[in-house]
Amino acid sequence: MTPRPAVRILGIDPGSLITGYGLIEVQGSRNRCISLGVIKLPEKQPLEQRLLQLLNQLRAVIGEHAPDEVAMEQVFVRRNVASALVLGQARGAALCAVAEASLPLHEYAPASIKLAVAGNGRAEKPQVQRMVKVLLNLATAPVEDAADALACALCHAQGRTLKLQTQRILQGAR
Amino acid sequence: MTPRPAVRILGIDPGSLITGYGLIEVQGSRNRCISLGVIKLPEKQPLEQRLLQLLNQLRAVIGEHAPDEVAMEQVFVRRNVASALVLGQARGAALCAVAEASLPLHEYAPASIKLAVAGNGRAEKPQVQRMVKVLLNLATAPVEDAADALACALCHAQGRTLKLQTQRILQGAR
Repeated sequence: MTPRPAVRILGIDPGSLITGYGLIEVQGSRNRCISLGVIKLPEKQPLEQRLLQLLNQLRAVIGEHAPDEVAMEQVFVRRNVASALVLGQARGAALCAVAEASLPLHEYAPASIKLAVAGNGRAEKPQVQRMVKVLLNLATAPVEDAADALACALCHAQGRTLKLQTQRILQGAR
Repeated sequence: MTPRPAVRILGIDPGSLITGYGLIEVQGSRNRCISLGVIKLPEKQPLEQRLLQLLNQLRAVIGEHAPDEVAMEQVFVRRNVASALVLGQARGAALCAVAEASLPLHEYAPASIKLAVAGNGRAEKPQVQRMVKVLLNLATAPVEDAADALACALCHAQGRTLKLQTQRILQGAR
């Protein structure tokens, strides 16, 4: 049996001030963290320049690490209309970076992501951070936004693995 | 007295499905329409590809007409959170195009724009379309989104002219 090729998944958690990202490499059922970080946008800069910075920095991350797929959180529609608009603008810039690189995008509901990494769809942020640390065998728990991005990538990895396993079983059954 | 150089103002009215734009050339108190149009995004395409199309088409408009300044409507915070998010994403892509071209951005409240072109901060859309037609001496009234973009550019032009006149008067008074 030939080993399955490694797949690189970039998780992105866009925000108007801080965008988290995390890149994992998936081979079979093994997940390895390649890179993680946060893109901080200077609050004092004009909005359009901040958004362009976000676009450019995500371009740089994509250019450096050549992910195969992207995973993002589906937006939790907030009660606050103004914050939805602000978040939407950051998401718009991030999505342009994804589309520019022609990467397939997969979106997951917040509860699905929490369920995937912490076994509980209502897990709190610190629990997600701890589980991401454990699942990726990291020395320390990542900061919140990077942990959210990695959790999203892990959620997608889990779904992919399950899909591949199902396909193999179905192929074997033929 | 040397004639003041012409200034090109690009008005943009971003939307998740239709983005209007309109370019005017301002020389002294004369405004001339150079170009107007709408960018329609195919509803069936994935969001990220639509946003990239918006970014690319605005890049093309900016590349073709070389505006000096950009005018946009300040967002009217809608009651509906979901629509604020969707609009935010389109705005995010549009703002990236503006920042990429290093164009100065000016934002105006909807009421200021209506007041500037129709003399009434609560003017209805058809009235704005008619006034844009008259002010720019167009053969027909532009479609709604292009008219909104041109109205925004005209509002900025009005403010600029007023500012220059004030500066001249103040310089003369010295």
